[in-house]
Order: sequence, then structure tokens, then C-alpha cells
Amino acid sequence: MIYLDNSGTTKQYSEVTSVMVKHMEEVFGNPSSLYQLGVDSEKSIKKARKQLQDAMGMGSGKAYFTSGGTEADNMAIFGAAKAFGRRGKRIITSSVEHPAVLECFKTLEKQGFEAVYIDVDRNCRLDEKQLEAAINDETILVSLMHVNNEAGTIMPVDKVKDIMKAKNAPGIFHTDAVQSFGKVPLCKTADAISVSGHKIHGPKGTGALWIRDKVNIPAFIEGGGQEEGKRSGTQNVPGIAGFGEASEISEKTRAKEMTRIIEMRKYLMDGLGTELKDIIINSPEEAGEKAGLCCGSVLNITFMGTRGEVLLHTLEQDGIYVSTGSACSSNKKGQSHVLKAMGLKDKEIEGTLRFSFGRMNSMEEMDIVIDKVSGAVKRFRKLGSFR
Amino acid sequence: MIYLDNSGTTKQYSEVTSVMVKHMEEVFGNPSSLYQLGVDSEKSIKKARKQLQDAMGMGSGKAYFTSGGTEADNMAIFGAAKAFGRRGKRIITSSVEHPAVLECFKTLEKQGFEAVYIDVDRNCRLDEKQLEAAINDETILVSLMHVNNEAGTIMPVDKVKDIMKAKNAPGIFHTDAVQSFGKVPLCKTADAISVSGHKIHGPKGTGALWIRDKVNIPAFIEGGGQEEGKRSGTQNVPGIAGFGEASEISEKTRAKEMTRIIEMRKYLMDGLGTELKDIIINSPEEAGEKAGLCCGSVLNITFMGTRGEVLLHTLEQDGIYVSTGSACSSNKKGQSHVLKAMGLKDKEIEGTLRFSFGRMNSMEEMDIVIDKVSGAVKRFRKLGSFR
Repeated sequence: MIYLDNSGTTKQYSEVTSVMVKHMEEVFGNPSSLYQLGVDSEKSIKKARKQLQDAMGMGSGKAYFTSGGTEADNMAIFGAAKAFGRRGKRIITSSVEHPAVLECFKTLEKQGFEAVYIDVDRNCRLDEKQLEAAINDETILVSLMHVNNEAGTIMPVDKVKDIMKAKNAPGIFHTDAVQSFGKVPLCKTADAISVSGHKIHGPKGTGALWIRDKVNIPAFIEGGGQEEGKRSGTQNVPGIAGFGEASEISEKTRAKEMTRIIEMRKYLMDGLGTELKDIIINSPEEAGEKAGLCCGSVLNITFMGTRGEVLLHTLEQDGIYVSTGSACSSNKKGQSHVLKAMGLKDKEIEGTLRFSFGRMNSMEEMDIVIDKVSGAVKRFRKLGSFR
Repeated sequence: MIYLDNSGTTKQYSEVTSVMVKHMEEVFGNPSSLYQLGVDSEKSIKKARKQLQDAMGMGSGKAYFTSGGTEADNMAIFGAAKAFGRRGKRIITSSVEHPAVLECFKTLEKQGFEAVYIDVDRNCRLDEKQLEAAINDETILVSLMHVNNEAGTIMPVDKVKDIMKAKNAPGIFHTDAVQSFGKVPLCKTADAISVSGHKIHGPKGTGALWIRDKVNIPAFIEGGGQEEGKRSGTQNVPGIAGFGEASEISEKTRAKEMTRIIEMRKYLMDGLGTELKDIIINSPEEAGEKAGLCCGSVLNITFMGTRGEVLLHTLEQDGIYVSTGSACSSNKKGQSHVLKAMGLKDKEIEGTLRFSFGRMNSMEEMDIVIDKVSGAVKRFRKLGSFR
């Protein structure tokens, strides 16, 4: 199996599975219980929070565990609306966000908030002038993803807070870092950051919202007051312990692994470029850590004269797993709102594949992928009598 | 280890851990992905949903997976407020609910809803006349737990829907069945039911809200539209698969196991009653499946002239794990609102322990528990010169 859909989900590190099983079989106490078995669970959560916070490297603030990136996004966005809704109605995001952000914005629009969706260019680079013009002194929330999940483009998150200050925006800056965490250093000026476990070889059903000290984001799920009252419900101790482990491993190996992954990505891009005509690289070609570049983990390509879904299933026969776009939406058949916002034509969207790399991929795999993808594209074009 | 805090959390069935590890190591695809690895994950969710729904035995409706019982309660209560808020403002619950219900009610009160909290008696039996009087034609929600988590008392859930119909209440009946699922047949007339995985030897971080067909409860977490749009976020496939497995095992073995557990409970109650004077059984003494009786899984006892917390730690030295009350709240030190509502005096609350039984307990353990508990109580009373 050559798994190249790591932006959809990842296979867990074996260390993560081990730590989870330990918390299922041995340290299974309720962390709110008074006896040692409960205290041990509480300690495991404390350790995992430290692992996560150290990996995020954000300084003074706290990560509250959630059931995933989507819940963290909901908590940040609806929380900001609750906390700051009296000080203004403008909320700003991009047109290429994950549905976990966009759907919350749509709901807030129905409640009277004025949402602004900033455009992107052909490589999913944000229109910074539009962003600057949109932020005003009634802006209570800017939510901008760090790395786009389909194109991999790194957004200019580091600039947002400065603009908000200059414009006297009363609200907060939230960034969905689900695709960047463990790959690109996080935005040090954000007020709130969403991260997810299953995108960094950690467990599904885990995530966190990091909140800067003194930033008021109220609880989203209410009840027993766990997570300092910010997120109620018996903590998923095995999941949290696994997420902590995955965070630590991902961050410790980040520099080395991302160098390797960027090399794989370039090798694949160049190889396909040599083998095939009429392909369009939709991601920014260069990968790195700066805004406007691509996060090394994603490569989005249009193979003109093909259908991505057919290519996907052809490659699957060879044990190669890629995606046509985001797997984050259960709406499998719909056209990607991201590729549309980037200005791709219908024919281009149709022939698009996303390759996304993880820590378990190897350079050796790329030779096979180049061979199989170019073979499949050539066969498809021949059958379809493309040109 | 003799673990008697199964209402706090349970140890997973080994079958549950196995199925989870399989979904971490092999079937790790994103269920929204198009290729077989994703389809396999989707199939696992489908299987788990069937296992859960079959175990619940509710008929025409659907169980939507959540991150736990607390989220399910939030979804039902805030959802009902959203869906029916224009048709009335009265919301009714009991004074002994889990904080996952009570805190949502408090929040809705702040939003203008008129909340009614029905009283209970000394054994946590609901005042049915008060309930009947409270339900009117502006009642948009009754949320009544099926089995109380501290006393084990079975609530008269089967009567609620009939009263609502008779009174032309426009809203829905929700029951938190976190403590009853797998132990007592669920309420067949409820419109929505919350269940949790980790209370039935399933995984932490899993739960579901079952919703009757045509009952309108909108999404609580928004985004990619998973779970038919009712609950967004990449599904926690290992957790869901494990929860399905735990549901099936718990229901298949329910009749036999609950008979055994009720015998253990009676043996413990009688044994302690023989060994010790001045103890008060706070749960209804008789266990069974009818309203007013106790669910076999719980036995709540006050040992006059002792301090529960000291007893708990003394028993812990012998490897016996019990609780002083609910572990569902992270507010470890606070007095139980349930015992208070039942009318226990401060001195009584102070000396109270909850024994809660699970599938992994044995009759042999009860002899040890009787011995150790009576020894500890007698020593404590001697030191404290009780009487």
C-alpha cells in the first residue's frame, strides 16, 4: 500500500496505539475520580497537555482537549460570537476554509452577523489587500486557516493580528491549524488555534483548541466542568494520551521529516512533469514555511483530459491511495469549493488529484507513483481521445 | 483489584480493544474517502450503528454518534430549544440530573426559557404529581434521566410522553440513558435518547444521540456534514466500532448479567446490614426494571459517623475502588447535588459511598468488600468515638 492521502487522515504511529491500549487496559480510571486509578488518568491528561502545548510552542495559553478539529473550530467561532457579539458584527474568513469554519459562519450570518469571505488566487494565495480592507473596528473575529487542506497553500496568518490591532478590531484571531500542525511552525500571534489528532498520525476523535491567556472563549459543550469548565464530558483519556504522544513525535521529528517530505514532493512533481504533458500544478510549486508557499505535505495537480475519480480508482488497483479533494466533507460527490474559489474551470476540477504526504511515505514509493500515475493518465487520455 | 465504580467509568471488554486496534492499524481510512480503505471504514460505522441501534431496540429512528453522553445531552437540549423555542418557553427536568443536562438548562434560563426542576424523595424517586402539574401546552422539552447516576433510582420515563400528549405539549421528550443502557430496557416512547460508550465497557470519547424519525433536532457541531449532517467532524472510527461492539455484548448478556449483578448487590447490601449498625440505604432497596426501583448496578449507602472520602482511601489500600458520589463532575470536592435534593443531611452526605457494579465483578469479591468495608467503618467509628 502506498498511502498518499495523509491530509484526509493518517495511520497512527505504533507508539500512539501502544499508549492508547495501556490506557484502555490499565489506566482506565475516570480522571475525575478521587482514588489513585483516577489520579493516574488525570496525570496522563496532564502529561499529554504538556506534550501538545510544547509541540505547539505557543507560550502563555492553554490547550483544551476536544473531540477533533471540527469541534475546536465550532467552539472558537461560536464562542467568539458569544463573547464579542455586542462589540461588533463583522466576522471575516476566507472562501477556501474547511466546512467546519464555513458552516459556522453561515449559521452566524443567519443570526445577524456580517460575514466577509476573502478571495484567493489560482494557487490559493489569499488576497491580502482585501483582508486588510475588510478588517475594521467592528471586526470581532478573523478566522483564517493556516494551511489550506486541498492546495496546501500557506496563508498569511502572521499578519492578521497586526492588522487587527492597527484597525482597532475588538475581536480575536482564530486559525485552523489542522493541516499545518506538526508540519509548519504555528502562528505565534493567534488568539486561538484548532488542531486535530488524526492528521498527525494520532487518534481519530481527538483535537484541541488552544486559547491564549485572558482571551475569552466560553464553553461550547457544558456539563461536569472538565477541562477547567471549557469542555465538559468525561475526558477520552486513551485518545488524549495518544494525541499527546503523536504531538511530541511529530514535533520532535518535524524539521528532519519535512525536509524529506519536501524532497519527495518535488521528486513526484518533477517526475510527473517529465512524464506527462498538459498537467497543471495547482499548489504553489515551491514548498516551505512562508506565506504563499506550499506546505510540503500537499501537492494538488490537474491532469487535463482525465477524470480524477477514475484515476483514483485506477490507482487504487495498484494499492496507491490519493484523493480528488478533501475527504473532510461527507459530501463525496460535490465539486470542491476550494478549487472553484481558486478559479479552476469545471474541466480542470474534474481532472484533479491531491497527493498528500505523511511520515510513513518513502522516496522509493514516489518512483512507483510516477510510473502508475503517468501510465493511468496516458491510458485515460488515449481512451478519451484527448488531443 | 476490586473495581466497584462502574457508574463512573468501566474497563473495556477485551473484544472492544481488539476491534479498536484493528481500526487503528488496518482499517484506518477516512470514512468519507472514495477508495476501498475509506469505504471499509464507512462499513465499520454502519455495522456499529446497527449494533448500537439493535441494542437500544428503539425502532424507527437513528443513532448519531457523538463524542460522549455529555455532547449528546447538549445536542438534544440546545437542539430542542432551537427547534421548538418559538412554540413555548417551558423546559422541564429533575433536580437530580447529571450536570450535562442541568448546565444546559441553566444556560437556557439565561436565554429566557422557563425551567422547572422536579423534586425527588429520600430514595431519589421522582414526584410524579409535580411532573404532571408542570407539563403544559407551552412545554417544548422534558428531559428526564432514566436511571440516576448516584442513587440508581429508575425514573418514571415511560409516563412522560403520555402526559405530554394529554397536555398538548408541543415539544419533545429526551432521556439521558447513560446509566440505564445495557442494564434496563430503554424507554420506548422517548423522542431522543443519550447513551455513552464508557459506561458499558466501551471506549471513552464515544456516545450517541438516538433521534426518533421526524423529530427535529438540528446539528450541534457543524462542518463537513458527517452523520447525515447531524454531527460533523471526521468520525472516530475505532471508537465507534468499539462502542458498537460494547453495545452488542452488553445487550446480548444483559438479562443474565443483570440477574447476577442484582444478586451481588443484594448480597453486599445484606452483608453490610448484618455487620454494621447505623447505615442508611439511600437507593431504593429493591432492584429491578420498574420505575421507583433501583437499577441493579448501583448501591448508595450512608455509613453514619464516618467520612466517605476517608473510607474511600482506606478501601483503596485494599485494592477496592468505590466513589463518594458522581465522578462525572470535575468538581471533586463539592457536595453532591443529588444527595442534597434527596434530602440527606450534611452529616449523612459526608458518610456516603456509592458502590457500582459492572460485568467484571464477581460474587467472591463481595465477601472481601463486606469484610473490608465493615472493618474500615468500625475502625473509623472507634477513632471518631461515634456513639
